[in-house]
Amino acid sequence: MDLHILDHRLRVTSISKDGLVHFTHPLIKLIFLRNRTRCKFFSLTETPENYTVVLDEEGFKELKPSEHLQVEGSVWLPLNVVSSGNVSSSSQAVGVTKIAKSVIAPLAEQHVSVFMLSTYQTDFILVKEQDLAVVVSTLGEEFSIFREVEGESVPVQDVHNGLHKNGKEAIQPTVHPVLIPQNHFCVMSLDPDTLPSIATTLIDVLFYSNSPKEGTPPTAGAELDCIKFFSFSLIDGYISLVMDTEAQRQFPADLLFTSSSGELWRMVRIGGQPLGFDECGIVAQISQPLADSDISAYYISTFSFDHALVPEEDIGRVTEMLRHQRKEPAAS
Amino acid sequence: MDLHILDHRLRVTSISKDGLVHFTHPLIKLIFLRNRTRCKFFSLTETPENYTVVLDEEGFKELKPSEHLQVEGSVWLPLNVVSSGNVSSSSQAVGVTKIAKSVIAPLAEQHVSVFMLSTYQTDFILVKEQDLAVVVSTLGEEFSIFREVEGESVPVQDVHNGLHKNGKEAIQPTVHPVLIPQNHFCVMSLDPDTLPSIATTLIDVLFYSNSPKEGTPPTAGAELDCIKFFSFSLIDGYISLVMDTEAQRQFPADLLFTSSSGELWRMVRIGGQPLGFDECGIVAQISQPLADSDISAYYISTFSFDHALVPEEDIGRVTEMLRHQRKEPAAS
Repeated sequence: MDLHILDHRLRVTSISKDGLVHFTHPLIKLIFLRNRTRCKFFSLTETPENYTVVLDEEGFKELKPSEHLQVEGSVWLPLNVVSSGNVSSSSQAVGVTKIAKSVIAPLAEQHVSVFMLSTYQTDFILVKEQDLAVVVSTLGEEFSIFREVEGESVPVQDVHNGLHKNGKEAIQPTVHPVLIPQNHFCVMSLDPDTLPSIATTLIDVLFYSNSPKEGTPPTAGAELDCIKFFSFSLIDGYISLVMDTEAQRQFPADLLFTSSSGELWRMVRIGGQPLGFDECGIVAQISQPLADSDISAYYISTFSFDHALVPEEDIGRVTEMLRHQRKEPAAS
Repeated sequence: MDLHILDHRLRVTSISKDGLVHFTHPLIKLIFLRNRTRCKFFSLTETPENYTVVLDEEGFKELKPSEHLQVEGSVWLPLNVVSSGNVSSSSQAVGVTKIAKSVIAPLAEQHVSVFMLSTYQTDFILVKEQDLAVVVSTLGEEFSIFREVEGESVPVQDVHNGLHKNGKEAIQPTVHPVLIPQNHFCVMSLDPDTLPSIATTLIDVLFYSNSPKEGTPPTAGAELDCIKFFSFSLIDGYISLVMDTEAQRQFPADLLFTSSSGELWRMVRIGGQPLGFDECGIVAQISQPLADSDISAYYISTFSFDHALVPEEDIGRVTEMLRHQRKEPAAS
């Protein structure tokens, strides 16, 4: 298997709920007006807390400093696992489950914190640029590692020959509380050429969903156990959307597509308090047992919390697994 | 002929060029998201100086006070002349030319300042609410006047019986300098249901036309004699667009329509210095001679300057007429 270090230098930022109005202009440009920007990696995720925006340096230049904008201090590099094609896998699972043992667990053991961004197309593992040498040392045994530079894939050697590896002392990770909201989610894509067709709907959902609609009474109570979560990404020309079924109903049914029609996902939100960016092992804690049970999972980190999406038919097993993990943290 | 005082209380505002980014959020809502606003009268016109926004009080609530927003102090009421249908006119002219003698000249004589807003569908004559009694007195002889109140047309009596009329002393109006840019303009409309189809193009033109496009070199020199002018209005569900042929090329040709295909207009911009809102007779000064020559004209007032649009085939006669007016101001 190959591991690619993609040619994007990313910033992880957060826009406050109240501050979104001040960033509508640059965000609409980054989402809809490809002719006007060189940004190639853009992701926007709304959660109840804030809007997490992950974007490359060309995109980041569009966001003016503001009291409403928080910027994580590091430059992050996206890693991407590419199956060589001739590798047969016994697992039918998709998403982070496929890379739980080969990438996520080893990085956690080496105390490398990761920021995960699953999309319809693939799973990006974001690591801090300063951790790159450790990442290469850690994953170099399992993977052929390539660095993408201006469209070329250049093989990467572990020049440090494992020097950067930390000892494999077992650090007992914090077991974070989890929340399992009632929404059902879909993971979808869209032909970029048809993006203009859903522009007004997407703008409505992304930028105005917190203001009341004229003529429709607020759906009191209905959202009590549901969570606000909507994610849009436009990465190297590919669009990915994660939304719940209520948001999905606002879009024309014929333009968005899922891998298998009607596939629905349930969410596990990880973290009682904002997780920060230094702790490692959070993704591993969830993805390891999912991999053991061969349960597919998308995984989306945001500025405050992490979010795993598992098939709705597996939510019972996952709930049981999480309960077990939380009752007996020492055994994990 | 009937004159209707429409059921909109309007504000005339201006957003600075630099300030537009701060108003993208409310403006996109007012233009594209009809479900989210009760605003029924909205007009946005870009000129080289600023963005003129005319909108009703429901719309005005969306614009947060800001150093980038100037608000004219008055409430303005839109008047609309409705042909009774059985009136045959010898004139084939459209636009303000039709109402130059019946509305615009009498109001100018009574020192009522007007703010004109021609659209694809009709011509709105905006007058200050405080001038309404004078307007009714002045136009009551020529017109049956109705006030629209919650969908009903209520006849208006001139209760003041002409008391408010000012004497008809002839005040020699200032003759303002004019500019005749080289652009050719079109006045178009669009089915409101197809507005989403042009959303990204319209957003691009309205909100991003001042930022350079990636990959396209700036068209040095080409715009030397052209003027930036783009107007969008959404009034009582009807859309009107005024743009030059360069902007028009960005829109899909099959969605926008003009009354007769290929009809092009040239612009006369009135005013060397910003005109303000108190001077009267500016529209009359242009529309009277146009009416005398039976030349059609759209007329769009903005925060700083006035703009008349005349058929391209008539621009020679109009130029000559304006030159004559400026050489011999005493004779006009």
